[in-house]
Amino acid sequence: MLALVAGAGRLPAILAARLAARGAPWRLCAVEGALPDFAAPDHVFRVERLAGFLTDLRHAGVDEICFAGAMRRPRIDPAQLDDATRPLIGRIAAAMQAGDDGTLRALLALVEEAGFAVRAAHEVAPDLLPAAGVLTATRPDDRACADAARGAAIVAALGAADVGQACVVAQGQALAVEALPGTDAMLAAVAGLDPRLRPDPSRGQGVLVKGPKPGQDRRVDLPTVGPDTVRAAAGAGLAGLAVEAGGVLLLDRDRALELADAAGMFLWVREAGG
Amino acid sequence: MLALVAGAGRLPAILAARLAARGAPWRLCAVEGALPDFAAPDHVFRVERLAGFLTDLRHAGVDEICFAGAMRRPRIDPAQLDDATRPLIGRIAAAMQAGDDGTLRALLALVEEAGFAVRAAHEVAPDLLPAAGVLTATRPDDRACADAARGAAIVAALGAADVGQACVVAQGQALAVEALPGTDAMLAAVAGLDPRLRPDPSRGQGVLVKGPKPGQDRRVDLPTVGPDTVRAAAGAGLAGLAVEAGGVLLLDRDRALELADAAGMFLWVREAGG
Repeated sequence: MLALVAGAGRLPAILAARLAARGAPWRLCAVEGALPDFAAPDHVFRVERLAGFLTDLRHAGVDEICFAGAMRRPRIDPAQLDDATRPLIGRIAAAMQAGDDGTLRALLALVEEAGFAVRAAHEVAPDLLPAAGVLTATRPDDRACADAARGAAIVAALGAADVGQACVVAQGQALAVEALPGTDAMLAAVAGLDPRLRPDPSRGQGVLVKGPKPGQDRRVDLPTVGPDTVRAAAGAGLAGLAVEAGGVLLLDRDRALELADAAGMFLWVREAGG
Repeated sequence: MLALVAGAGRLPAILAARLAARGAPWRLCAVEGALPDFAAPDHVFRVERLAGFLTDLRHAGVDEICFAGAMRRPRIDPAQLDDATRPLIGRIAAAMQAGDDGTLRALLALVEEAGFAVRAAHEVAPDLLPAAGVLTATRPDDRACADAARGAAIVAALGAADVGQACVVAQGQALAVEALPGTDAMLAAVAGLDPRLRPDPSRGQGVLVKGPKPGQDRRVDLPTVGPDTVRAAAGAGLAGLAVEAGGVLLLDRDRALELADAAGMFLWVREAGG
């Protein structure tokens, strides 16, 4: 049986709907203080009681876990520790010092050591991972192709430093780079940019480029784009979106493409190095 | 004789004052459309007339050139080309495609091929490049030291991708990364960040980290900090500034340190890898 651990954003609700439609039993889980708004979870846990939570899942017949949606790095309250988690917490705390990737890797290792298989969101819903190609009527022009290539190089460098997974490039220049506040905050910053600080849009409006971190565990935390991203990119005056093929989930695909087409923007699922 | 080519920001005015105080003759130069506000330039040029401009300087007795202050990558108007620059413009245009570093390298190469020596701002005013150490009464605590080290790694990664020269790190997380709009815009974004998106400041307020790009030509375009940077960092609620020793110019030092001390912030000139 599969357990879905739901974080923030649209992805958990989409997966929950797929799981419900499939008919097989499954469990919805969430972290205390960050409960989903689409359904009441069957299990609520805290990182300080991770071991107890995994035992509960095993007793319920769960053998596969899918982590979906953004999760904040928690603070650890020693008073909340259960006995089974206490021996593990040093490892968890050390991983949290090492950044998001380290935290995630440590969490996945603990889950697998406890005997669970980790399932990616796109194993649960394969159509969320679009095949390579331009999905919109509008296609990227030469300028946009060059900006997408430069953006992919920047995203790789950012990802290697565990900073972010997206950037905006216009006419070869990085207008903005994603950090902790996320893609929407970055696009809002571009929308609010003093036009004098921005290259002349008539020569190339710029491209939102998004992709996973190099070496990232693709079973969890793949970056996503969806209708909100398209809307925010349109608000920032961009020509389109270039996302890495096999590395970015496209949520609410029909609506996202409809919005992009209406705005005359491209949505390009781009082969890495392409 | 030295020619100062003045771009934007405080640095050109500071250097002009030093040169005037020194008494030896010198020339002030600026790019058409971006004239300095502190003095009328002796020479105004456009990139399309670079060769003619250099000839004028040579005839005036100039043999050394100092580039100071931010310059926008110009657009090239073929109608403005002079005969001597026409054979060079392909090289300039190709370099401009390759980003800021490429543009600068190509420009410096042309200037040196024309027989001029390129002088760094800190050759004209050595005290602008502060020696390593903590310059303020407030010293970085362990958390700030860790954030400064992580920030330096991020700045190196950003710089290698020719994105920016600064970032803000709090509790190991990148809150913001500098791109085209610059350090002040980045700090304004941090000041405006939703507190829910920000790690609890009581556990570490965060550090502005600034340093040159790896492999950057340190004769031009070293990053700067000054009173405005300290004010903006205070407005963003940061614990202090960590700038790379030997790689960042400190402008209006006394005023900058006074503001930092008044705000209880540190200004740390940090050895790379320190």
